[in-house]
Amino acid sequence: MPRVVIVGAGFGGLACARALAGKPVETLLIDRNNYHLFTPLLYQVASSLLNPSDIAYPVRTALRPAANAAFRMAEVAEIRPAERLVVTASGEAIAFDWLVLATGADNNFFGLTAVERRAHSLNTLPNALNLRDHVLRSFERAVTEPGRAAEHLTFVIVGGGPTGVEYAGALAELVPLMRRDFASLRHAPIRIVLLEARDALLGAFDHSLGRHAAERLDRLGVEVRLGDRLDRVGEEAITLASATTIPTRSLIWAAGVRPNPPAVTPFLTATPGGRLVVGSDLRIPGQERIFAIGDVAACPRGPGEGEMPMLSAPAIQAGRYVARAILTLEHGRVPEPFRYVDKGIMAVIGRNAAVAQVGPLKMKGLLGWLAWLMVHLWFLIGFRNRFAVLMRWGWNYVFYDRPIRFIVPGLKRDE
Amino acid sequence: MPRVVIVGAGFGGLACARALAGKPVETLLIDRNNYHLFTPLLYQVASSLLNPSDIAYPVRTALRPAANAAFRMAEVAEIRPAERLVVTASGEAIAFDWLVLATGADNNFFGLTAVERRAHSLNTLPNALNLRDHVLRSFERAVTEPGRAAEHLTFVIVGGGPTGVEYAGALAELVPLMRRDFASLRHAPIRIVLLEARDALLGAFDHSLGRHAAERLDRLGVEVRLGDRLDRVGEEAITLASATTIPTRSLIWAAGVRPNPPAVTPFLTATPGGRLVVGSDLRIPGQERIFAIGDVAACPRGPGEGEMPMLSAPAIQAGRYVARAILTLEHGRVPEPFRYVDKGIMAVIGRNAAVAQVGPLKMKGLLGWLAWLMVHLWFLIGFRNRFAVLMRWGWNYVFYDRPIRFIVPGLKRDE
Repeated sequence: MPRVVIVGAGFGGLACARALAGKPVETLLIDRNNYHLFTPLLYQVASSLLNPSDIAYPVRTALRPAANAAFRMAEVAEIRPAERLVVTASGEAIAFDWLVLATGADNNFFGLTAVERRAHSLNTLPNALNLRDHVLRSFERAVTEPGRAAEHLTFVIVGGGPTGVEYAGALAELVPLMRRDFASLRHAPIRIVLLEARDALLGAFDHSLGRHAAERLDRLGVEVRLGDRLDRVGEEAITLASATTIPTRSLIWAAGVRPNPPAVTPFLTATPGGRLVVGSDLRIPGQERIFAIGDVAACPRGPGEGEMPMLSAPAIQAGRYVARAILTLEHGRVPEPFRYVDKGIMAVIGRNAAVAQVGPLKMKGLLGWLAWLMVHLWFLIGFRNRFAVLMRWGWNYVFYDRPIRFIVPGLKRDE
Repeated sequence: MPRVVIVGAGFGGLACARALAGKPVETLLIDRNNYHLFTPLLYQVASSLLNPSDIAYPVRTALRPAANAAFRMAEVAEIRPAERLVVTASGEAIAFDWLVLATGADNNFFGLTAVERRAHSLNTLPNALNLRDHVLRSFERAVTEPGRAAEHLTFVIVGGGPTGVEYAGALAELVPLMRRDFASLRHAPIRIVLLEARDALLGAFDHSLGRHAAERLDRLGVEVRLGDRLDRVGEEAITLASATTIPTRSLIWAAGVRPNPPAVTPFLTATPGGRLVVGSDLRIPGQERIFAIGDVAACPRGPGEGEMPMLSAPAIQAGRYVARAILTLEHGRVPEPFRYVDKGIMAVIGRNAAVAQVGPLKMKGLLGWLAWLMVHLWFLIGFRNRFAVLMRWGWNYVFYDRPIRFIVPGLKRDE
């Protein structure tokens, strides 16, 4: 049976492997982690609401319904298209008949090394846990170092896209709980600053929704600073382009991601944005047997159209398309070009407040929030996770509580 | 108001702080972590059943009902009894009228540095998470390095006390799940070895219960080796005193803990076992205002009697006793000597199987298991934790599933 090797167990890679379940191929899914991560809810892990296990799902368990699929926890070091081989970092050579690159994206610090060194981020599970610990520890430090309270209690989030907006809202809702736990900080100034270089939040959304988000965040106590950007980053303060200095030890980077193609790939070409160039059937030009999907690839919305956004829905659609395309090619036929069906975009701001945009339809407030809840619960993998997340959201909604407020730093770097 | 400073937010320290709630004292609880940990269930975190948040509880939240109690996340560097000061590692000097040392215990490797370097353990939350990751990673490695499968799939637990027995049972019940997830290991030999230097498991229990535990573990597939001990520890294998060599990269230390007194304490004297000597009112001899309780102290069961075991129940009783004793002393009266009420001991072996011993009463099998379940649920702090643990136990019982099977290594050592 032909062997399909998929690199990356994110939304695109996993959707492709699952779409090949029961088909006359043998599938091998490779990822450096043993879990699929529901990244849209990472900011809730970083704000003490969800457990890692609520949004991470073991890849092997996700593949149980696919008897023809196997998993390998490994990093890809090299791809040899002529020999149809993928070589892992530990030296294992894995043969493929079809290869699907779905390696996703990483933080983009745009070459700002000072930021990269100091900033926390929300893009991986260890980073989100680290950010949670850092935020909780900042409150403890404000108690033991009252002279530095301003630094410890100011949180600057860079980037006014969905990630920045969602984390700013989640942090703002954490503040009253922290004030309840820290008697000596009950009246201390706690600042959350959301910095966006453009003149509106949520640039991908309609302007009215960006304005709504800014108003709601303002009501939650977030300082939204539009049209300003980081200039200098120090240990105890940052300076903005507007010459404002903000004392802070908490810089949270949500200002951009960049495609993360597998290493050593001379046969791949990238767009100026760094995404891999693919044809209308999502194959790498000149490589008959290699596809690229999701954040890492510049997949067109349709023939002759622009790139799809770096989101989960396009990745899932592309993963399913590639599964069908491989089966079609195996039958000696030519696949139809890929066409993206836009399912819309959404972002949550806080309790009872979210914005959503589906074609011409715009939702905000409670309605947007309910839509957001349902979509996110629906797309979580596994009944147990849906149940656990629903329980935790319900607990938070009723008791205004974030249960997971403890600091577990410094896991020994095992092997 | 007199100020009570309690060092350590384990069972003893927290019980003391809570017993002082609403009393005419001001309480400050100090711990290096911001959470109280329900250590009896750590082995379930290390075996992919429970989340850290199920058994960790923020100290500040635990102290909410005590309006006269505050918390400080800090390490104690020095105690100056004459000046009635505790100095933290960050240099803060905290004044006390009464001081309670409840700093617990740490692993005791009996000077075996090779073991200390290689062994995993179950005594803290980071260690338990690290052990969970290591076990899961061992299975992934057995796939990528089939030539070393024997090393990767052999787990040696040293110490046949409750911790070793409980973890051996929990690991043994994890094995069938791993076989289901890893098609290529469905028939691979997976070994769990439980090593005990004495001739019986569960030395603190009646012999019949130790024998029962050994039989049940044997039925679960655990190799119980009595009367043997570690001789040499290498990276890929260990050698026992009986000259048997066992290939393994997983050594799990459950063979002993030692008291963990605060640093730089010349005025304290210790028993040969390392526990702080205290009088019948749990005060340090010669120190009118300093108590020691729990694992760190050699608290007598009663006047002229032997030491209490290093368990949670004695620590809780001692913590409550000290709270009363301080109030009595504040009234210028002499407290009654401490008397321990033995509530018994218990250990779980696996599904429907536990042993428990309360005075002359011995329980085993399903009855012991139900008693174990109820006691452990009851003593967990917080309704939410009880509910979460009950849900997870129920899920595991019905579906034979361990949901938290993912590897999240190498949190960056934040600050």
